[in-house]
Amino acid sequence: MSHAPCFASDNYAGVHPLVMAALARANDGPARAYGADALTEAARARIKEELGENAEPFFVFLGTAANVLALSAMTRPHHAVLCAETAHINVDECGAPERHLGAKLMSVPTPDGKLTPALLRPLLMHLGNEHHNQPRVVSIAQATELGTLYAPEEVRALADFAHENGMFLHMDGARLGNAAAALGLSLRGASADLGIDALSFGGTKNGLMFGEAVVFFRAELARDFPYLRKQGLQLCSKMRFIAAQFLALLENGLWRENAANANAMAQLLAEKLSGAPGVEIAQKPQTNAVFARLAPAVIERLQARFAFYTWDYEQNLVRFMTSFATTQAEVEAFASAVRAEALAG
Amino acid sequence: MSHAPCFASDNYAGVHPLVMAALARANDGPARAYGADALTEAARARIKEELGENAEPFFVFLGTAANVLALSAMTRPHHAVLCAETAHINVDECGAPERHLGAKLMSVPTPDGKLTPALLRPLLMHLGNEHHNQPRVVSIAQATELGTLYAPEEVRALADFAHENGMFLHMDGARLGNAAAALGLSLRGASADLGIDALSFGGTKNGLMFGEAVVFFRAELARDFPYLRKQGLQLCSKMRFIAAQFLALLENGLWRENAANANAMAQLLAEKLSGAPGVEIAQKPQTNAVFARLAPAVIERLQARFAFYTWDYEQNLVRFMTSFATTQAEVEAFASAVRAEALAG
Amino acid sequence: MSHAPCFASDNYAGVHPLVMAALARANDGPARAYGADALTEAARARIKEELGENAEPFFVFLGTAANVLALSAMTRPHHAVLCAETAHINVDECGAPERHLGAKLMSVPTPDGKLTPALLRPLLMHLGNEHHNQPRVVSIAQATELGTLYAPEEVRALADFAHENGMFLHMDGARLGNAAAALGLSLRGASADLGIDALSFGGTKNGLMFGEAVVFFRAELARDFPYLRKQGLQLCSKMRFIAAQFLALLENGLWRENAANANAMAQLLAEKLSGAPGVEIAQKPQTNAVFARLAPAVIERLQARFAFYTWDYEQNLVRFMTSFATTQAEVEAFASAVRAEALAG
Amino acid sequence: MSHAPCFASDNYAGVHPLVMAALARANDGPARAYGADALTEAARARIKEELGENAEPFFVFLGTAANVLALSAMTRPHHAVLCAETAHINVDECGAPERHLGAKLMSVPTPDGKLTPALLRPLLMHLGNEHHNQPRVVSIAQATELGTLYAPEEVRALADFAHENGMFLHMDGARLGNAAAALGLSLRGASADLGIDALSFGGTKNGLMFGEAVVFFRAELARDFPYLRKQGLQLCSKMRFIAAQFLALLENGLWRENAANANAMAQLLAEKLSGAPGVEIAQKPQTNAVFARLAPAVIERLQARFAFYTWDYEQNLVRFMTSFATTQAEVEAFASAVRAEALAG
Repeated sequence: MSHAPCFASDNYAGVHPLVMAALARANDGPARAYGADALTEAARARIKEELGENAEPFFVFLGTAANVLALSAMTRPHHAVLCAETAHINVDECGAPERHLGAKLMSVPTPDGKLTPALLRPLLMHLGNEHHNQPRVVSIAQATELGTLYAPEEVRALADFAHENGMFLHMDGARLGNAAAALGLSLRGASADLGIDALSFGGTKNGLMFGEAVVFFRAELARDFPYLRKQGLQLCSKMRFIAAQFLALLENGLWRENAANANAMAQLLAEKLSGAPGVEIAQKPQTNAVFARLAPAVIERLQARFAFYTWDYEQNLVRFMTSFATTQAEVEAFASAVRAEALAG
Repeated sequence: MSHAPCFASDNYAGVHPLVMAALARANDGPARAYGADALTEAARARIKEELGENAEPFFVFLGTAANVLALSAMTRPHHAVLCAETAHINVDECGAPERHLGAKLMSVPTPDGKLTPALLRPLLMHLGNEHHNQPRVVSIAQATELGTLYAPEEVRALADFAHENGMFLHMDGARLGNAAAALGLSLRGASADLGIDALSFGGTKNGLMFGEAVVFFRAELARDFPYLRKQGLQLCSKMRFIAAQFLALLENGLWRENAANANAMAQLLAEKLSGAPGVEIAQKPQTNAVFARLAPAVIERLQARFAFYTWDYEQNLVRFMTSFATTQAEVEAFASAVRAEALAG
Repeated sequence: MSHAPCFASDNYAGVHPLVMAALARANDGPARAYGADALTEAARARIKEELGENAEPFFVFLGTAANVLALSAMTRPHHAVLCAETAHINVDECGAPERHLGAKLMSVPTPDGKLTPALLRPLLMHLGNEHHNQPRVVSIAQATELGTLYAPEEVRALADFAHENGMFLHMDGARLGNAAAALGLSLRGASADLGIDALSFGGTKNGLMFGEAVVFFRAELARDFPYLRKQGLQLCSKMRFIAAQFLALLENGLWRENAANANAMAQLLAEKLSGAPGVEIAQKPQTNAVFARLAPAVIERLQARFAFYTWDYEQNLVRFMTSFATTQAEVEAFASAVRAEALAG
Repeated sequence: MSHAPCFASDNYAGVHPLVMAALARANDGPARAYGADALTEAARARIKEELGENAEPFFVFLGTAANVLALSAMTRPHHAVLCAETAHINVDECGAPERHLGAKLMSVPTPDGKLTPALLRPLLMHLGNEHHNQPRVVSIAQATELGTLYAPEEVRALADFAHENGMFLHMDGARLGNAAAALGLSLRGASADLGIDALSFGGTKNGLMFGEAVVFFRAELARDFPYLRKQGLQLCSKMRFIAAQFLALLENGLWRENAANANAMAQLLAEKLSGAPGVEIAQKPQTNAVFARLAPAVIERLQARFAFYTWDYEQNLVRFMTSFATTQAEVEAFASAVRAEALAG
């Protein structure tokens, strides 16, 4: 069956066939619940292989929960989490972080969705003052919500900054695969090796049905996490079905293949739109999102035919997002449509 | 492949083949995320058909979350939730209700896991007194954690009691299917028709991979629930994969077939063990759990071979739980083993 | 005994003698606890006289609690409270609002600490979207943390804006007396009459030892407040001692006398410093705070002799704050010292 | 002026004259806010003198807050606080502990309001199991809500039990003075010396206007407490006025004098009622509460004339509570009235 090409979000995509096959294979008789099964053990071992011996992975259902629970292991309510104004935790989680942590998010405007020590330093001015939340975690997304990438040395600089100031560094890796693929790094090279303390390791947006992993790189953060996960509504009873998906994702580099396809399709789309009259590519795509400016009428006509989001109504900025499932034919068909509508004005 | 018979819990079972097939079918190209897809619409409509026009269903990932979020829609932190001392929300959720509601659980001892107006009345003595949490919800499980059943008129009496005292009635239906099957009622007859205000409609324990539904029977409780669900870490991005499972469960009465099998296997197991020397069946099973007393040494030897839980160490009480997947052959093999070990003493 | 003049904060001041006398008078044998005493009844009646028949006052211990509990009566955790970036609730309460409400504060930069509908409108863009906290309360301070004042029509415009968008308007009146005195209005004219829904009515900063009142102007907000107050750690057992202070504050216009003195002393200080070499008055004081720029060395020498706060280290901005107890002689002595130090450079 | 004798509660009493005098003396010009003043420093030093060098005292406004904040320094939301079913934290604080800690209270029935290791041991059965809150604090009241006393060795046994099981011992000392006076111990001998980790040191019920102290005996519990106090709505701006009261209470043993009077008056009242027809003293008073059984009609007539509480309606049990201010004449007058009404039947 054929579908209209979809550039709305990487979570509009379905499940990769190899992941689906793994789910079917995992459905083989009874297994101990709540993660005491063999598949979960294997998947945890596999993640440690991938991210390093000190990695302590825990499966959860979804990305917002991965972020919130990872942060809750690192904070108490009088702490603050420092993040970019555009961060998913700040903007797109219906206040789940504040609700569950009790703590304050302190956000800073950024030019490109990326934090730097210089941007963060002013937020430390009330250290030690009981009238103010105490900064405790720096949280970054790799890739960011704007599709931009931290260079490895930029992450390391933030890790050093965090640690020098008694803070942890958390990485929201909902699209870690896209970042690692774009940077030509291993998953470990794009995360654990750069000094981060906790990672939200995304699966859903890279071809899983559901399932993310919270990974700690400090034993003391992991110690109480089983309780935080259960109390935090994230202990999956038939956990083998998350584990099996992660095993599939990590087998033969499926994660990289999926992410690389998404990235390449974004690249291709940007190229196909480049120079088209009435289309302004906001920035060269670094991962799997293309931001473009179009006339309002053009946006309206295109959205009647294709699924994609307007990112900023005031700026007429739209986001085209590709996924593991996006094909070259879809990109070409869509690009033609965009060019035609833009030309029509 | 063959497995040792498993009587530990109905969440040790895997996924029913028809549910697995529905998941595969649902994986057909892109679909709108967060429940704005056609399958979710269809599944919601199907649940309304099943439970009544005023039913407002919302999918979530897991049972603890269904309970906690349903209760959070009905309470503010100065309220209290009244429940049995043995209730899942009181005992098995790592304090998630207190954590998320901020409210107090007021529990009462019961002979059989079932509440009655008479048991609850003393908890109302501080109504209107600012020094005490104000009772706001009565929460019952159908079937209960002890495998017992409320008769329809018992639920109705609790609904009346709750409403007369300005409270809501919540039903934890993690095993609603087992209850309805055992009572010979429709899902609606076992829940909505009895005056309840909110239902945790269980799927996982009746053959799904994951997925439960919170169902409200009062529009005002449903109004803000989309926010509560998102903030409560339960908004599934690829929601069609929960919806598809519920559609499968409700098609051609699969829910009843699954539940009836579990119930029948428990019945059979109790019969096979009945009168066996050294085996005391604690009570005739009403749904899919058999409680029995065995000598400690017998329990130890059996647990080395089969998966099941000791329910009460002081009483040498064990629980054998059956599922949709339990077969007659498994029951017979297991019963023989139990009889033999008990005889050996 | 003589003290060095103090311009640090109006809560460095002690207790007005008439308030102290009222406390002594209130200490007359036993009285019912938790506010069921005659003085509390009288004080509540007196506040209703002052603020209008629909005013529902509740005494609490301190200002942060008054704000937090007032807001918690108006919100659920998926809501948002809109405020100025400089608001006390946003900056100076160690995240108590986020902690207790679970909700998000959405703050906007302002030129002068004052909100306007135009500044707030962009925060409404995600109304009805489950991924975002839903704006529910606009919170303003009168006078603001910057010592500025809302004109009555400005408050009314905010009330209209809030109500048109399904929100409440809360006024942090920690310095309501100073505002009303400066505006030549009654307490009611400066608050209740302008359409606000809830007021934190400050006492401590205007001459009390401790004690604030949360006042609601909608019966439904007051209904559950006794529970919120008790659970919110603010139910004073010997409440008559808060009530007695409020009665004293409201008798013969003591509140206005105190506030007017504080305002006048700030005015005087600004005049005495006006035109002094090396002293730049940042803005004409509207209430009881004078903001001035001084050279860092001057600030350092002055702070060795007098208590006052540096408001902004980067701008070399200091705040001189006056109180009900500040005398003309103190202002003159201090002004001379400032002029002399500033001249010395 | 003369008052009807009051036996309702020790917080119906007013303020001791020496405390009131100390408040007046403290009102001497400006002082640094938020506890950075000389009186607060002196009072903290005085408490350390009284309770030991490792005592870390923090002033708060009220007893419920002292309990809640002390416990919140010792717990995270997945923990549990173990207490007697009759504990103030369990029964009389409108769920403030659950609300603020997020944790579960696990309570046990007791014969006399007192915990023992034997009563608590069964609550440890789920240690290490992620499905259950993990016991973290044992909380006792000295004296208890039933007016009973722990012998020093009983407290020590609980401290040992707590520490052996990785828990802390918290003492709710709202009536610590009464306990110490009754036991003939110093404040330290009745608390710090017995191995407790945190103390709610009560002032209000022993003659203060308002004010309690949270005292930690482990530096690590105190470290973040300034933030917990501020965020917990308990940082008093004019803190010298709490400090001055504690200084007065600790000067020349006023605390003991006040408490001893309350205890003696309870003793006297019990004696005067002893053997009276129609009056049954439930138990010999150990501190400042007399529990007695009277016929319902007698209770009703007496309550029309005097303030006191019915403790248990089903048992016709009333509580007569004495305070620092209760006089021998009041006791005698009241005892006569009770005897007369009881005789009339």
